[in-house]
Amino acid sequence: MELTLPDLKIALDTAWVLFTAFLVFFMNAGFALVESGLCRAKNCVNILAKNYVVFAVSTLAFWLVGFALMFGNGNPLVGLTGFVPSLINGSSSFSALDWTSVPMAAKFFFQLVFAGTAATIVSGAVAERIKFGAFILFSAVMTAFLYPVAGHWIWGGGFLSTLSTPVHDFAGSTVVHSIGGWAALTGAIILGARLGRFDRNGKPHAIRGHNMMSVTLGGLILWLGWFGFNPGSTMAADSRAIAHIALTTNIAAAAGTLTSLLASWYMQKKPDLSMIINGTLAGLVAITAGCDAVSMAGAAAIGGIAGVLAVLAVFGFEKLRIDDPVGALSVHLVNGIWGTLAVGIFATVDGSIFTGANGLLYGGGMAMLKSQTMGVAVVGTFVAFASSAAWLAIKAAIGLRVGAVEETEGLDEGEHGMPAYVMNDEVSDFAPMAAGEFAMTNIPGTRRIVAENTAALKR
Amino acid sequence: MELTLPDLKIALDTAWVLFTAFLVFFMNAGFALVESGLCRAKNCVNILAKNYVVFAVSTLAFWLVGFALMFGNGNPLVGLTGFVPSLINGSSSFSALDWTSVPMAAKFFFQLVFAGTAATIVSGAVAERIKFGAFILFSAVMTAFLYPVAGHWIWGGGFLSTLSTPVHDFAGSTVVHSIGGWAALTGAIILGARLGRFDRNGKPHAIRGHNMMSVTLGGLILWLGWFGFNPGSTMAADSRAIAHIALTTNIAAAAGTLTSLLASWYMQKKPDLSMIINGTLAGLVAITAGCDAVSMAGAAAIGGIAGVLAVLAVFGFEKLRIDDPVGALSVHLVNGIWGTLAVGIFATVDGSIFTGANGLLYGGGMAMLKSQTMGVAVVGTFVAFASSAAWLAIKAAIGLRVGAVEETEGLDEGEHGMPAYVMNDEVSDFAPMAAGEFAMTNIPGTRRIVAENTAALKR
Amino acid sequence: MELTLPDLKIALDTAWVLFTAFLVFFMNAGFALVESGLCRAKNCVNILAKNYVVFAVSTLAFWLVGFALMFGNGNPLVGLTGFVPSLINGSSSFSALDWTSVPMAAKFFFQLVFAGTAATIVSGAVAERIKFGAFILFSAVMTAFLYPVAGHWIWGGGFLSTLSTPVHDFAGSTVVHSIGGWAALTGAIILGARLGRFDRNGKPHAIRGHNMMSVTLGGLILWLGWFGFNPGSTMAADSRAIAHIALTTNIAAAAGTLTSLLASWYMQKKPDLSMIINGTLAGLVAITAGCDAVSMAGAAAIGGIAGVLAVLAVFGFEKLRIDDPVGALSVHLVNGIWGTLAVGIFATVDGSIFTGANGLLYGGGMAMLKSQTMGVAVVGTFVAFASSAAWLAIKAAIGLRVGAVEETEGLDEGEHGMPAYVMNDEVSDFAPMAAGEFAMTNIPGTRRIVAENTAALKR
Repeated sequence: MELTLPDLKIALDTAWVLFTAFLVFFMNAGFALVESGLCRAKNCVNILAKNYVVFAVSTLAFWLVGFALMFGNGNPLVGLTGFVPSLINGSSSFSALDWTSVPMAAKFFFQLVFAGTAATIVSGAVAERIKFGAFILFSAVMTAFLYPVAGHWIWGGGFLSTLSTPVHDFAGSTVVHSIGGWAALTGAIILGARLGRFDRNGKPHAIRGHNMMSVTLGGLILWLGWFGFNPGSTMAADSRAIAHIALTTNIAAAAGTLTSLLASWYMQKKPDLSMIINGTLAGLVAITAGCDAVSMAGAAAIGGIAGVLAVLAVFGFEKLRIDDPVGALSVHLVNGIWGTLAVGIFATVDGSIFTGANGLLYGGGMAMLKSQTMGVAVVGTFVAFASSAAWLAIKAAIGLRVGAVEETEGLDEGEHGMPAYVMNDEVSDFAPMAAGEFAMTNIPGTRRIVAENTAALKR
Repeated sequence: MELTLPDLKIALDTAWVLFTAFLVFFMNAGFALVESGLCRAKNCVNILAKNYVVFAVSTLAFWLVGFALMFGNGNPLVGLTGFVPSLINGSSSFSALDWTSVPMAAKFFFQLVFAGTAATIVSGAVAERIKFGAFILFSAVMTAFLYPVAGHWIWGGGFLSTLSTPVHDFAGSTVVHSIGGWAALTGAIILGARLGRFDRNGKPHAIRGHNMMSVTLGGLILWLGWFGFNPGSTMAADSRAIAHIALTTNIAAAAGTLTSLLASWYMQKKPDLSMIINGTLAGLVAITAGCDAVSMAGAAAIGGIAGVLAVLAVFGFEKLRIDDPVGALSVHLVNGIWGTLAVGIFATVDGSIFTGANGLLYGGGMAMLKSQTMGVAVVGTFVAFASSAAWLAIKAAIGLRVGAVEETEGLDEGEHGMPAYVMNDEVSDFAPMAAGEFAMTNIPGTRRIVAENTAALKR
Repeated sequence: MELTLPDLKIALDTAWVLFTAFLVFFMNAGFALVESGLCRAKNCVNILAKNYVVFAVSTLAFWLVGFALMFGNGNPLVGLTGFVPSLINGSSSFSALDWTSVPMAAKFFFQLVFAGTAATIVSGAVAERIKFGAFILFSAVMTAFLYPVAGHWIWGGGFLSTLSTPVHDFAGSTVVHSIGGWAALTGAIILGARLGRFDRNGKPHAIRGHNMMSVTLGGLILWLGWFGFNPGSTMAADSRAIAHIALTTNIAAAAGTLTSLLASWYMQKKPDLSMIINGTLAGLVAITAGCDAVSMAGAAAIGGIAGVLAVLAVFGFEKLRIDDPVGALSVHLVNGIWGTLAVGIFATVDGSIFTGANGLLYGGGMAMLKSQTMGVAVVGTFVAFASSAAWLAIKAAIGLRVGAVEETEGLDEGEHGMPAYVMNDEVSDFAPMAAGEFAMTNIPGTRRIVAENTAALKR
């Protein structure tokens, strides 16, 4: 087989798509660490399990149903071809993805990790009170139906992509983050607040997270993952595009970090690390829609505003008595919206790799901003209603919320029968001991067993 | 120097090989986190140290000896050329690797990270009772001799690769995982169970892991690492191949996750997160041999069966009174075997990128299954005997097992003189204090020192 | 647009540069984990926050000022063009980077992550006593001025790069690591030792780290990150170069791991895991300058010596009563110097991809060693003075060190108002409870709130 230049380009593009998809896959670890760390130790296994299993569920659901609904050939509302695709050879069922020439398997894999991200966003907002089974079920509905249908409208050739000024959502501020955010919002409302979060006068009581080491590592993994999320959405190793997008992504993250740092320092007197990390994520969510379409300065502005919005929104949702244990709504919903609208304001054809229209600040008038607003509103309305219906159906079928006793004792014991940490199960303080004298362990009868086994060992 | 298309292809292939090798290298972190988290806090430093140092040992041993034995030109049993290779220029000593055109240094590096993986698999099964020095020594033997010799038979041009139907082990279900698994099995048997694991009536007592945060992160790092392990084994950025393999790898992982979830939920009443994570790993181990040769549906079946096998095997090894603290045997040995055999069942030339023969289910008859069975049996027999000999030799030379006192107190203190966690070493509860009043720390005399230093600071 | 071979090469090179830059970015996580784990739990949030925020600060400072001073066209002492660059199109302001053909945005991004690394090195040496704001301020000065100016001399076309035998510092043993190390040294001296570290007789008291799980993971992340740091510094996917550099990097790391293991085992009686991890990092720092210029054997020697130096230096700095909580000086300063000098000893044109001159051991005489020594001395002198001035200016302006009460209580509470870990905030031991009986939490009044909310839930 002769080696050709176009083949080699496809090989490079495929390597790029897979590499970036792996980074996005790794965001599952980031979400697991951030969310579990920001919640209490007694619910840690449960949150880890949700975040771990959700990608497996997404893989099956998106393969069987979701990918076809999102990218299959169909009508402006939904895709209708390509269920349970074999993916080994090219397929004519997914003409909405014809713009990239990588193999069908690579297209699917890249889209799959995005679907998984949308599902995992929900996890944080419903943490510390949702039944494990109910969450798993919702994740399947999310990745099989909700995300694919709304995603079809913008990315699958649906009606929001064929407007005279199409909605521009390059890597998914709306398609991934605000869809996840709306489903998180309805879930948090329908579930209600955690016990003890608000007292009968509505006064909020802060519930502290339990592991900032994990939150910080998770935040950095997510920041890393976004270098897959945004630059990978080119689905080709276009040198100017991927370099520009890596930069706008990073500068928005940096700006969000610094403005949330300042906002937190000002409002809370001391810089709160969890606010700072959410500020980074807010900047990243916000730049996602327009990472290709704005300049370095535009990215800094978008991210900087996002960082402040994230801090304000945390207090706003608390005021509304909506209990979001990890700030998922402030990050993904609020800034998914902000980032999508911001494209209409900051898009610049000269200062970016974008070939569409200029935004408001660059002389493009209101056209883009109107389209973006419409995109936000239409998707939001649909997902808010559809996700509410899904939550309520699951509630009717198997119940959504664990019992009050289980919630108080912790979901780790109630749902999984195991604690996250066992630090003092056995001798751990290295107290000096006489040789041959064995410490008691808390397994009943261990002292005797140890003695017996030791004797046996000596024989 | 003129730029040519073949040179550029080599550059791309090299970038791909290195990128995927880095992911496989990072699996060291995954194994360290999973294994240490599934063991007790008092042995955490020891397990981390073993997993950390083992790659350094592998690097030296594989460079000096192992690479030559595995890939050197030689005979059907062993390679004999290329010891301590310089690797800077092409070498005629390794004709078994001529099929890929990347530089010799890249070939070596990719094979090295695989050797390291085989060695690190052993660590979990012998954890919480093996001497640090004994493990290090065994790792050197493993990567210098055991792994390279058996690996030569399948990957180095040895006798299992020249059968009329050659053994097909694309990325190493047998070569890496079952070799590691067999050495782990003999080690676990020769060492005996941990004190307290079984009482004198043979009744098992579960010993809980200590840190599920770490286990979960480790599991996700390993899942990520497998995207290097399998797609990288092409050793070239062949677009159709790497995309297909990424997908089969992922769907097997997802299926293993879900079936182990269901099996654990059914058998243990509640879904056990450590079982679920081992289920993922089981799916990944099992798909490793045939990731190139099976379809999406085949991969789902292989992974799904692997997830159930992993759960059943944990209880099986417990019945046999073999103590495997982290489930390494259930994951790597059982599913290394299953995955190798599965190629003989599920291989499909039409539904994959494979150009060999079809398996049993696709009309290929028993030919492949027979070869695969022979590969499993021959390699297993050799490694079981050779690793036993190595364990026993080390036992005779320096002893394998720590003393009962040390085991009870923990190997962190006994082998390394340091605890993994010091959470309450000093003031950590932020009790309100009057200015100028200093808390006691547990360093003798610190209160006085603090006072003195403070006075000094004020001068 | 027609596809051309040169364009495709640029695309591949850009993908390589971004991929490796992402790995270097991820080193921020490695540093955060290593440093916080090696310090006390009561200062963990503070150390995480410093390491987290420093990259955001670096992004802004390097974009606004630093990149222009380092790579802008100017004179032998400093760059003067290209402040606040737009980076979207090629720029004639940075002729020092013309040697690589990737887009300007990719050049900037790669250099940015290096600047961030230099800044983050400082963090460990000043940990557990520096004010958060003072560190942030110093980081800005570091990445806007100190690092760029000294870096200009070697990488930006400055006077050390135009010597008859130019200083050879391929990936930054001096430019990144020893610059960071010198600034860390002056900071540690000016701040003084932590309370309790030395008593009034100068006798040292070891202060233990609190989380070896985190340190080990961090160490492996840094090892991974170095596969970006060194092979990425080619700024092109040159197949022979990147494969060779990946190997020399790895073998130096492995050698440093093993020699520090042996040195620690010999000197401390038991192998200390934190010493071993620092030994790896020492090997990595040392090979950074000459990773392109030495052979496998040379790399093993450089890394092996580095591992011993790291262990010895820890005790050396302790003797000098310089308090470096994480061993940053032993790793980055001592081995940054050693690695730079080692190029003059081990450089080999035949055994590497280097096209310069041979070092001392390969018949090149003293020429290279002299240049390297001069590079070390000039950069060291400048950074020692300039960083001292910066530290003293910040001390005068806002103060450097937290109060003694805050230091004793921990900086997490004092600087951030939050603890890193809340393990026992609420029910976490799963003691058997009668249904309906709720555990007390330590949020005032929670028992009552729980009861009320439960009642509400039942209505």
